[in-house]
This record gives sequence, C-alpha cells and structure tokens, in this order.
Amino acid sequence: MSSTVGQVIRCKAAVAWEAGKPLVIEEVEVAPPQAMEVRLKILFTSLCHTDVYFWEAKGQAPLFPRIFGHEAGGIVESVGEGVTDLQPGDHVLPVFTGECGDCRHCKSEESNMCDLLRINTDRGVMLNDGKTRFSIKGQPIYHFVGTSTFSEYTVVHVGCLAKINPTAPLDKVCVLSCGISTGLGATLNVAKPTKGSTVAIFGLGAVGLAAAEGARIAGAARIIGVDLNSKRFEEAKKFGCTEFVNPKDHDKPVQEVLAEMTNGGVDRSVECTGSINAMISAFECVHDGWGVAVLVGVPNKDDAFKTHPMNVLNERTLKGTFFGNYKPRSDLPSVVEKYMNKELELEKFITHEVPFSEINKAFEYMLRGESLRCIIRMEA
Amino acid sequence: MSSTVGQVIRCKAAVAWEAGKPLVIEEVEVAPPQAMEVRLKILFTSLCHTDVYFWEAKGQAPLFPRIFGHEAGGIVESVGEGVTDLQPGDHVLPVFTGECGDCRHCKSEESNMCDLLRINTDRGVMLNDGKTRFSIKGQPIYHFVGTSTFSEYTVVHVGCLAKINPTAPLDKVCVLSCGISTGLGATLNVAKPTKGSTVAIFGLGAVGLAAAEGARIAGAARIIGVDLNSKRFEEAKKFGCTEFVNPKDHDKPVQEVLAEMTNGGVDRSVECTGSINAMISAFECVHDGWGVAVLVGVPNKDDAFKTHPMNVLNERTLKGTFFGNYKPRSDLPSVVEKYMNKELELEKFITHEVPFSEINKAFEYMLRGESLRCIIRMEA
Ligand SMILES: NC(=O)c1ccc[n+]([C@@H]2O[C@H](COP(=O)([O-])OP(=O)(O)OC[C@H]3O[C@@H](n4cnc5c(N)ncnc54)[C@H](O)[C@@H]3O)[C@@H](O)[C@H]2O)c1
Ligand SMILES: NC(=O)c1ccc[n+]([C@@H]2O[C@H](COP(=O)([O-])OP(=O)(O)OC[C@H]3O[C@@H](n4cnc5c(N)ncnc54)[C@H](O)[C@@H]3O)[C@@H](O)[C@H]2O)c1
Ligand SMILES: [Zn+2]
Ligand SMILES: [Zn+2]
Ligand SMILES: [Zn+2]
Ligand SMILES: [Zn+2]
Repeated sequence: MSSTVGQVIRCKAAVAWEAGKPLVIEEVEVAPPQAMEVRLKILFTSLCHTDVYFWEAKGQAPLFPRIFGHEAGGIVESVGEGVTDLQPGDHVLPVFTGECGDCRHCKSEESNMCDLLRINTDRGVMLNDGKTRFSIKGQPIYHFVGTSTFSEYTVVHVGCLAKINPTAPLDKVCVLSCGISTGLGATLNVAKPTKGSTVAIFGLGAVGLAAAEGARIAGAARIIGVDLNSKRFEEAKKFGCTEFVNPKDHDKPVQEVLAEMTNGGVDRSVECTGSINAMISAFECVHDGWGVAVLVGVPNKDDAFKTHPMNVLNERTLKGTFFGNYKPRSDLPSVVEKYMNKELELEKFITHEVPFSEINKAFEYMLRGESLRCIIRMEA
Repeated sequence: MSSTVGQVIRCKAAVAWEAGKPLVIEEVEVAPPQAMEVRLKILFTSLCHTDVYFWEAKGQAPLFPRIFGHEAGGIVESVGEGVTDLQPGDHVLPVFTGECGDCRHCKSEESNMCDLLRINTDRGVMLNDGKTRFSIKGQPIYHFVGTSTFSEYTVVHVGCLAKINPTAPLDKVCVLSCGISTGLGATLNVAKPTKGSTVAIFGLGAVGLAAAEGARIAGAARIIGVDLNSKRFEEAKKFGCTEFVNPKDHDKPVQEVLAEMTNGGVDRSVECTGSINAMISAFECVHDGWGVAVLVGVPNKDDAFKTHPMNVLNERTLKGTFFGNYKPRSDLPSVVEKYMNKELELEKFITHEVPFSEINKAFEYMLRGESLRCIIRMEA
C-alpha cells in the first residue's frame, strides 16, 4: 500500500450529480490526507435514510456533485500530519459526527456533540483548507458529513474515525457507523431501562429495532413496539418486541392505550420516528414518578413539542440523544466488542447485499421500504 | 400527657370559616388517632403560599370550614392502632404528601409520589374512615392536605410524619415541611449541579431561594437569579446568587440573555415561579449536550409547555419534581441533619414571627410580599 502514500489515488466512486438521479460510478481522484486527516480504503458501506434524504434534497440547500455514504468499514491507507492515533492497516469505522477530544463537549462525560466535528450536513469540504479531496479531472466533488463512503477511497478527519478490533468482520460491523448505534445507545446510554422493566419503542425502522435490541440486551421484560405500519410487527419480534400497538387501531391517543396496558405507563420509551406526534406520545406514555422518554427522531423545522407542564411536574424525564450518546472514538470500539461477544446481534439488521456496481439497487430497496440495511460490497 | 390518650382533646385552632375571610381562633375537639394515625401537639407552624391559595379558593372547589397549615414541627401525643414507628414524645415534621412504604412509588428509588398518600387538596377527611378528626360542638371541620397544623393538636397519617432528631430546634426546622425542602431538593436531588458549575434559578421566592441555597451547598461557581421583580435581588445574595437577570430589562428572550452570559447556556436551571414562560425559558437556557432543567412551579390548568423538539434532541434534559424528590419519612431526617451540621442555613428564610393569636398577620405579610417565612408560635 505504501506506494500510494502522498500520491493522488484514482479509484471508483458513486457520484450523485443531481438531486434524486441515480448515482453514477466514476473514476475520481482522491487527494492525500492533510493535517489531522486520514485516507482509508472502504471495504463495505451501507445505506441509511439520511443519505437518501440529502440525495433527494427536498428540504435543504442542494450541494452537488457529491459523494454520499456514511455507514462503512475500512482500512487506513495513509495518515496526514499530526495523526498519531492511527496508522496504515488499522481497521476503522467512519462516523458522521466526531470527537476532537479537546472541546467542552468532548471533555464532558455526558455530551458527544463535539464543537469542532459535530455533524454538518451543509458543509461539503474538509475543515483543514475548506476544500474537497475528491475531484474528477480537476472538478471538485463535494463530501457528505465528512465521510463520503460511497468511494473506494475517502478522506476523513481523524476525529471521525473509530479504531476497532481488526478481527471484527467489517461487512457486519460497518452498520454500527450510524443508525444501529444510534438506536442501541438511545436505550443503553440514555433511557437505561432496568432488568424486568417495560419499554415502548416508537417506530420500528432500523433505528427503532436497534433501540428494541438495546432493551432486549438490558433485560427489559416487556418491549412494546409502536408503529403506524403493522407490517413491521412480524420482523420486530426478532428484535425482542413482545407486544405491538398500531395507533391507527385505536380511537384514543396511543399514550392512553399504553397506560392501560401497563398499569399507568411504561418505565421507558424511545422515539425513533421523526414524527412530532410520536414524540409527544412517547413522553406522555411514561409512568409518573420515574418514567424516562428519549427522543431520537429528527423532527421537521416547524414542529412544536407541546405538553401540559403537569406531565413534567409529575416526575417524568424527557431527554434527547444524538448518535445514542456514543462518543465515536472512545465508545464505538466497545460496541464492536458487544457484537464480538455475541451480546449484540447485527446479522438480523442486514436484509440485503449488493456489489458496488449496483449501488442504486440499495436506494430502491430503501425507498420501497423493503430493507433494513443493505450492505454494499466495494470489491465485487 | 398520657392522661389524654384515647380521649378527645379540646384545644385552640385557627378555623377558616369562609374563603378569604380572616381565620378565627376557636376551641375545637380533636378526636383520638385511628388506625395508622398519630395525634400530635404542634409547637411551631409557618405559612406557605399554598395555604393562602386554598384559603382564597379562587381556582378550586371551596371546602369550608377548614383548618389550614402544612409546615410545622410537633411532638407525638398518642398513636393509633398499627403505628409502630412513632411513640409519644417523638419529634416530627408533618408533610403534605406521604410515604406509605408499600406502593410502587415508595419502592422505587426515583419516585416520592406515593399512591396512597400523594397530596390531595380536595380531600378534607382522613383516609381511614372518610371523616374528620376536628369538630366544633359536633360540627365537622375539614382537614387540609392531611396536616392541618394551624391547631394546637392535629391528627396526621403516620406516613406523613418524619421523625427527626429531638435536639433540632422545631422553631427553625419546621420550615422544612414544604417549600424550603422543595427548592433545596430540586437542586440537590434532581438538577444535581457539579462543583464549579453554573446554575440559573427562575423565581426568587422562598422556593427559588432554597433552590439557590442548594446550588450554593453543591458548590456551584455561578448562581444566576432570574426574577421579574428586581426587589428580590438584594436578599437573594444571602442565598448564594452571584448574578441577576430581570427579563423585563431585555428586548430578547431571557434564554438568549443567559446563553450570552454563559457561553452557550447554563449547566443547570431550576424553575420556581409557576409561570409557563419561565418554564420554557428555564428549559431553553440550558446548554446543549449536558444541560438539565428542573421544573418546580405549579402551572395553571390551561398552560402548555411548548418548545422546538431540536432543543430536546440536542441532548438537553427536562425534569419535574414534587417536594424536591424527598421521600418524607426516609429523607427529611437527613435534611434536618444538614441544618444541624450547619451545612444548610435556615435562619435567613425566617423573616417574621407571630404568636398564634396573631396568625392573620402572617397572611398579611405574605399577601404584601414582605415575608419569606413567618413562624407562628403556638404557645404565646
Ligand atoms: N438522533 C440521531 O442521531 C439519529 C441518527 C439516525 C437516525 N435518526 C432518526 O431516527 C428516525 C428513525 O430512523 P429510521 O432509519 O429507523 O427510519 P424509518 O423510516 O425506517 O422508520 C421510522 C418508522 O416510524 C414509523 N412511524 C412514523 N410516524 C409514526 C408515528 N406517529 N407513530 C408510530 N410510528 C410512526 C414509520 O411507520 C416507520 O416504520 C428518523 O427520524 C431519523 O432521522 C436520528
Ligand atoms: N413542586 C412542589 O412540590 C412545590 C412545593 C411548593 C411550592 N411549589 C411551587 O413553587 C413555586 C414558587 O413558590 P414560592 O412560594 O417561592 O412563590 P413566590 O410567589 O414567593 O415566588 C415566585 C417568584 O417568581 C417570580 N416570577 C413569576 N413569574 C416569573 C417569570 N416569568 N420569570 C421570572 N420570575 C418570575 C415572582 O416575581 C416571584 O418572585 C410556586 O409555583 C409554588 O406553587 C411547588
Ligand atoms: Zn470536541
Ligand atoms: Zn445514518
Ligand atoms: Zn406509597
Ligand atoms: Zn407549602
């Protein structure tokens, strides 16, 4: 590998030229890593709703041409100036948010919202020089959330890379880069259900199922899945859900249905929908005295969270989390170990697999709601 | 004292015959305690806003004639059947909410909202037989929140009595029955600021000043008092407040003023106003990543707590507390010890003192906003 160090690498990448148009596999130039940057070879990547959302560019300022992708597993090819934690050959998971190690958030035990490397979906360039490392015949191609993993090689800030156990299979643990860790951490790090408790999970997509998996790992006795789409219920059983509620099947608010099922309310709830109604229900369905609700879903710009203050006064707790409160560099390696110890099951999240050349199929599976996670193999 | 055991006691009580009319000192009959009840001699009582609120009977179903009062210190005169934890001569603080010891709330480490003995402002009778223990020539006189301490003798459920150190001065520690413990516990038990942190206190009445006292005890470096009434600021310095903000002095929302003063937000906030605007500001002024806001004030029936869900997602926590999360029987004795160890200062809360015969003066001081706490001495 050493022959490429310091050189521009030519490789294949899936470029999004326009909003909503199929990605095109192109030959791109990937510049060497600058200060505090790392260039890595991506072996496996997977598709998340966030890629699709920004590719569709319906709600935000479009930034094209761009290389999407933020769930992946790779191997360090070379490192830039000042990088001491990583060296060529290390196995890493890139993450859409980072950990500089120096800011107040990184120094706080509670926060993972790094001031320097917090997710920025508008920025398409690297921090060091405000430029891209990708180009096609000199035309710059924008980055996405600092990761751009739909490329055989990519450049990432060292603070956005978790160094993991080199024996971990990258085609499985790559899904820990985003959604699965988010749901898992929302339950294990934030909601913290105790053994034998009752947990409601709102939204049974990949994030909600990972939250359910967290409740299963924590030993919850009852895990109640709530979704507007009853088709999700059968699969959710594999993730530990013991009961299901579809709000559409009831005349009264789902929080009342849940309160009746649980003698006053659930012990913990985790909202993984992005729907403001679900956020409010998730808060109001927890038991007074000790209930904790955790919001994970990304709301719309104009949403308002609204509840009667007595619901708060009666000793309920409302929390939000970003990336399941995991600090990427400090905490992700131990999540990989949970998988290695067979505490955490990842295989059941992986419903599809395609070679890189068929990456657009991964988009179709997701848009049709057929997949949880589709693994994209970079080497055909 | 043993001569009165099992007998009706005739003594003086301040009876509220009608909403908003001065109390009248009457001779009342106090029946002996029934199962799980305790009759006690009140030595000192103090006046809280809640007494005044229900005496004015503006928002609620009026229940008269009634004996108000719920902050007090007394000595057990006799105990009813089944009472094993207390005996004649024990020093106790009656509390408006109780701890049965058996329900899910009492068994939870987090909750103090006992299913059996949780505050009930509508009930004017004892639980055991649904009747009053007070009468005047056979006419029943209603109880208030299970305490009715504006009487030389009263009957209280054993679950609403904290047995305290008999050497503690009852004329001081009696104020721990309600508001002071509420504010103190909101900070120490719920907000839990760390040493050196920044805390905002909304509302500088007795409850808010006790919350500030909690922040001082916890070692907060900056304690920012927020009140619409700047007259409160001078006194609040005695309670550890280091800075002040009057929202009326600013064109922008107070949460923005606080964020500017603190590089992005305070570490903890405690709302002790009852104003919905202050509740929302108290939540929105805490720092993302780790900020915790605690609501204490009792809202109006039609209030709505409203915020953008991103404020939650950005890892802020919203909590509410009732009686500062103290379990009356298990926890109040240790608060009394904090006073005995000179960790907690109570004298500065006590601004006035009157003999029982002048109890209506205590109402006047409070209605004019002159007093924090006015101690009422039962023995002239
Ligand atoms: N906070 C973070 O760090 C973070 C990270 C990744 C994803 N997310 C967010 O998590 C959420 C879930 O992601 P996903 O990939 O699992 O999405 P998904 O679309 O696969 O699943 C969402 C599920 O919620 C259900 N749903 C929608 N409205 C509902 C309602 N009112 N009540 C009950 N169920 C409802 C849908 O039917 C669907 O099954 C999204 O909002 C996503 O943006 C947050
Ligand atoms: N949760 C409980 O267990 C419990 C127990 C006792 C009291 N309380 C409640 O605590 C609250 C405070 O009690 P108190 O006796 O100290 O009351 P108080 O009236 O003496 O003090 C309240 C203070 O808040 C200020 N204030 C009002 N609106 C404000 C705003 N928007 N911004 C800033 N300041 C504002 C007032 O000027 C006043 O100084 C009340 O709502 C009371 O009902 C709750
Ligand atoms: Zn940082
Ligand atoms: Zn994602
Ligand atoms: Zn109880
Ligand atoms: Zn009170």
